[in-house]
Amino acid sequence: MIIGGIEAGGTKFVCGIGNEKGEITNRISIPTTNPTETMDQVKHFFRGTPLDAIGVGSFGPIDLNRNSGTYGYIKNSPKVEWKDFDFAGAISSIWNVPIGFDTDVNAAALAESIWGAAEGLSSCLYITIGTGIGAGMIVQGSMLSGISHPEMGHIRVRRHPKDHYEGCCPYHHDCLEGLAAGPALEERWGKKGVALKGVDQVWELEAYYLSEALVNFILTLSPMKIVLGGGVMKQHQLFPLIQKMVQYKLNGYLSFNELSQENIAQYIVPPGLGDDAGLKGALALAMRAYQSKL
Amino acid sequence: MIIGGIEAGGTKFVCGIGNEKGEITNRISIPTTNPTETMDQVKHFFRGTPLDAIGVGSFGPIDLNRNSGTYGYIKNSPKVEWKDFDFAGAISSIWNVPIGFDTDVNAAALAESIWGAAEGLSSCLYITIGTGIGAGMIVQGSMLSGISHPEMGHIRVRRHPKDHYEGCCPYHHDCLEGLAAGPALEERWGKKGVALKGVDQVWELEAYYLSEALVNFILTLSPMKIVLGGGVMKQHQLFPLIQKMVQYKLNGYLSFNELSQENIAQYIVPPGLGDDAGLKGALALAMRAYQSKL
Ligand SMILES: Nc1ncnc2c1ncn2[C@@H]1O[C@H](COP(=O)(O)OP(=O)(O)O)[C@@H](O)[C@H]1O
Ligand SMILES: Nc1ncnc2c1ncn2[C@@H]1O[C@H](COP(=O)(O)OP(=O)(O)O)[C@@H](O)[C@H]1O
Ligand SMILES: [Zn+2]
Ligand SMILES: [Zn+2]
Repeated sequence: MIIGGIEAGGTKFVCGIGNEKGEITNRISIPTTNPTETMDQVKHFFRGTPLDAIGVGSFGPIDLNRNSGTYGYIKNSPKVEWKDFDFAGAISSIWNVPIGFDTDVNAAALAESIWGAAEGLSSCLYITIGTGIGAGMIVQGSMLSGISHPEMGHIRVRRHPKDHYEGCCPYHHDCLEGLAAGPALEERWGKKGVALKGVDQVWELEAYYLSEALVNFILTLSPMKIVLGGGVMKQHQLFPLIQKMVQYKLNGYLSFNELSQENIAQYIVPPGLGDDAGLKGALALAMRAYQSKL
Repeated sequence: MIIGGIEAGGTKFVCGIGNEKGEITNRISIPTTNPTETMDQVKHFFRGTPLDAIGVGSFGPIDLNRNSGTYGYIKNSPKVEWKDFDFAGAISSIWNVPIGFDTDVNAAALAESIWGAAEGLSSCLYITIGTGIGAGMIVQGSMLSGISHPEMGHIRVRRHPKDHYEGCCPYHHDCLEGLAAGPALEERWGKKGVALKGVDQVWELEAYYLSEALVNFILTLSPMKIVLGGGVMKQHQLFPLIQKMVQYKLNGYLSFNELSQENIAQYIVPPGLGDDAGLKGALALAMRAYQSKL
């Protein structure tokens, strides 16, 4: 089987050709400019490859309601040229094969649950902490959705009493994303995250906010595994800090083995697929679409 | 079809006999004492009725992991005599029929999504605000579960800057339940909730905390309907306050029709099944168990 995957991000599109095992044989990275130009390059990359299915993990928000007239569209995105772009429509006008279409983070969550850190588990929460904060959730093997896909990056968290940074979310100021995504780190401390590596208080505070969010996600979703990816999580010293704070804040209320002293380091983990979670997720979406057409 | 339902609460067990339409023909309320005594009365109520299936919506926490050695047990409950009680086992030793077993709030969420306020929707969040705060979530027609059932009552919320009540959760002090369940109201204001009816600031503060939680649940779960039940929600003046605060806090970030000025009063609603949501939920669990055995 030959399948195509597109990890459609706000900065770059990563396209890959792979198989049903999630193995990638060929890939390309394309800068995200405007839909016409970017899609032309995508088309060019796949030209001549006889795809059996194609999957897209897209930046959002996107419309995933199949009963909606704008299913598959990018919605009120800050990226003006992409707002109201009929992404799924554009794909299906090029390829007459099964198409998987979901958010980038749902795709990554799916890939992690099939081939990655949550392999074999029916439930997995994937969170990226990068330019924004986004999350995808696999429940009983499928992407969690209701009215639409989750928007967990914008949950309200308790302010740290010593943190007076106002937050940078244009909608909520100090939601999780406004306080803990890469740009918030940079604005609060005056340097990019990567340049703050040795400054302990930066990562203590970052772990404080991320653990506030994780505690709420654990209580709400009861995920079997939590995978934290994205640029900010390259600071691996965050993992033990977050694990400790999650335990401290839950204070023994949940008696699951996964949360025990012994096991928590295997519960809150980096992506098993590393930087390929998104692209492999797009392949996984394609596989799902193919199987559902059988 | 004749089905049995047990709404097993910490104060009382409500047992009912009904049919596949959720119609209840006969019911009884039994005080919750100890397992032997209470289960004897349950058995006595159903004696002579040829049940096709039985469902139990239980107070928790309960073990819902089918691979666990203690599946169907009540876990570290504050009700000492019920801790480690093999509830599902006790039921199956009495009735040799399909058994549905889940939390009381998952049961209520299921009933609301089949016969109640979320009829016809594949997604529904049911929250009870009573002696405690608990929530059940239907996703794509099934009960959300991962490691276990959710424990949403214990999420962390932002303190209201003018509220200095320390909270009464034995694990977390000022989690949602510790700040906003019935006992917190009573301890903070020195009177039972029902006696505070006319005091506006009580319900403003209550709506503040409930809206903090709902915003996070909406962003995390994207439910198609939110049903709020339990004793505290008998104060119906809470609904418009909560609806307004949820909109205010989301600040237009989510552009769903459900959240619009026009529609929000149909989005955050009281139980369509009134006080029968729990018992009908137990019937619905029985139906599910019956169908899955066909
Ligand atoms: N090694 C690092 N340490 C800390 N922060 C980083 C690191 N690498 C990238 N970041 C931050 O992460 C953000 C970019 O996230 P990334 O996941 O790489 O991309 P995006 O979210 O745009 O897809 C930027 O704010 C950047 O400063
Ligand atoms: N009409 C009311 N107004 C405000 N609070 C109420 C009302 N009725 C009950 N409560 C409060 O709700 C709690 C009981 O919740 P309820 O849902 O009836 O039972 P339980 O949660 O124990 O199953 C108590 O704390 C009680 O004070
Ligand atoms: Zn925000
Ligand atoms: Zn608590």
